[in-house]
Amino acid sequence: MAHRPPDPADPAADAVPGTALADHLRAQATEFLRALRLHREGGAGAEPVDAVRALRRSARRISGSLHTFRPLLDPAWSESVRPELSWLSGTLALEQAYAARLERLLLALHRLSGTPVLPAQAPGPAPSGATEPGKLAVGAAKAGALLERQLTLARTRAHSTALRALGGSRFHALADTVALLASEVPLAPGAAGADLRPLAAAAEERLSAAVSALPLVTAGHPYNAEALVHGLSPGPAPHPQDAPWHQVRLLLRLHRYAREVLHADLMDVRLTAAGQALDRHRDAAEAATAAAEAARTPRIAPATAYALGVLHADQRHEVEAARFAFQQSWQKQTVGTP
Amino acid sequence: MAHRPPDPADPAADAVPGTALADHLRAQATEFLRALRLHREGGAGAEPVDAVRALRRSARRISGSLHTFRPLLDPAWSESVRPELSWLSGTLALEQAYAARLERLLLALHRLSGTPVLPAQAPGPAPSGATEPGKLAVGAAKAGALLERQLTLARTRAHSTALRALGGSRFHALADTVALLASEVPLAPGAAGADLRPLAAAAEERLSAAVSALPLVTAGHPYNAEALVHGLSPGPAPHPQDAPWHQVRLLLRLHRYAREVLHADLMDVRLTAAGQALDRHRDAAEAATAAAEAARTPRIAPATAYALGVLHADQRHEVEAARFAFQQSWQKQTVGTP
Repeated sequence: MAHRPPDPADPAADAVPGTALADHLRAQATEFLRALRLHREGGAGAEPVDAVRALRRSARRISGSLHTFRPLLDPAWSESVRPELSWLSGTLALEQAYAARLERLLLALHRLSGTPVLPAQAPGPAPSGATEPGKLAVGAAKAGALLERQLTLARTRAHSTALRALGGSRFHALADTVALLASEVPLAPGAAGADLRPLAAAAEERLSAAVSALPLVTAGHPYNAEALVHGLSPGPAPHPQDAPWHQVRLLLRLHRYAREVLHADLMDVRLTAAGQALDRHRDAAEAATAAAEAARTPRIAPATAYALGVLHADQRHEVEAARFAFQQSWQKQTVGTP
Repeated sequence: MAHRPPDPADPAADAVPGTALADHLRAQATEFLRALRLHREGGAGAEPVDAVRALRRSARRISGSLHTFRPLLDPAWSESVRPELSWLSGTLALEQAYAARLERLLLALHRLSGTPVLPAQAPGPAPSGATEPGKLAVGAAKAGALLERQLTLARTRAHSTALRALGGSRFHALADTVALLASEVPLAPGAAGADLRPLAAAAEERLSAAVSALPLVTAGHPYNAEALVHGLSPGPAPHPQDAPWHQVRLLLRLHRYAREVLHADLMDVRLTAAGQALDRHRDAAEAATAAAEAARTPRIAPATAYALGVLHADQRHEVEAARFAFQQSWQKQTVGTP
């Protein structure tokens, strides 16, 4: 290889100058503007969902770099832009999240009913199969219909909210800021010559510290039954145990983005596996919550509630399986690192 | 060691004569009569439940030897006694099974509610804690109360049936047969000099064949989610996948008993671990069924049904965990065998 990517942990490697950060931010800002153009042109070959995803993707990366490399950027600018980027990616994420949650839950209901899984269906106002009589048991069918109603409504609302956001003045101000970023990055004085590696290493240390606080020994024992503890708890927030895992998910993403800035892609496959396990953890946890919430709908039939209970527990076991998968991939990573 | 136990797989080891079978049957018959005396004397230091357990224990062993070493015993006698022993151990097993099932389900409800597990309670007509308000969420408390009602009723009925059985003529005839067996074992002609090892080896082969038909590769992958497939199936017998595991459980027991006859106790620890995993498999499967059946009680509240659904899924995951544990212990066994 002509150009070996620098390893931030290697003290003998060359320093990575702040100009690399500026390059990265300019490139992501350009991606943002391209996605925005795609979205406004609408349907020119690309799905609107792809444009929204590309917008979120660059917004998250810009926001991550602003966080990790904050000392190298103009502080007033950086602190005003970051919340706007978080607001945007949060707002745009919801529609897709509800769609994915519904798909996950309907697929689980089919798996639990022993009926063949349908060809990947785009969940929408009237998906086929899920409520088809004779395929699912009554309780499962009713639970599926209930979840479909609730999550489709939530998704429709999220869609409207996203559209309103993209047409509003708050977004236009942000788009203007990003357009400026694509040509000129407001670095702090002296940042162009500063080394990016210590700040990237600090992001990695924050990740390591958070991982070491996770109950990985328990997670590494299959069928530890931890994820369902409190599954029937009377408390309103029954799963505080999830929070540290969600936090690691965010820190892992920041670490991954920082590596992208440094072009240090060496272990990316492993980081990707760990990140996917944590995405699955989050998705399953939210799906389990959606099933539990649906079960609180007034006047549902006991068979519906029973199916939702089975579904909730199934998704909490997915949570546990995801923790196991993370533990396994993380262990490989630690062992594999020189 | 002065007396090394013979290994049935070792062709160089000494043959085990049929007289060892006669010794074993006489000893088990004596155990049976001792347990019966204990039961009739009642409360002389020992719990009645211990006496019943000892009765079942020797009945199962006699029955197992009759099956495995059938060619060495008087066929007419053997074929008339075995069904009686099965009837007895089946009848006596039920009361304890219902009590254990209730205890398992109440402990699971407490675990799922995040409430501290109570000190090992003897489940009875009025166990404490389980339905204590404020400790369990409403649904979990109601589910616990419902299961308690249903399983306590079943247990009381099983207790009466067992008492009636032990006082009836069918049992008295069997007790007479066992009393005769304690002094004289009806061996087939020439059986005293025959070698027991080929018949014990055949029992082991039946076990190996049944194990090799199990989906052990799947079971060895943690969180394979197989045990809950069909968990919401509309069919009346939703878990045909359990049957081969139950069958292996019985064959493993026969193999273990055959080894006892041969005094080949070398690998007993491993066999015990595998057997315990299969006991747990059976117990969890039956507890899951009990939760599902309770959910079909007319006019229950949706919150109760929801809790029963969570409980059902939890126990089905216990089923999956038990399969994993069996796979692990069996693998060790196969690797450990020379």
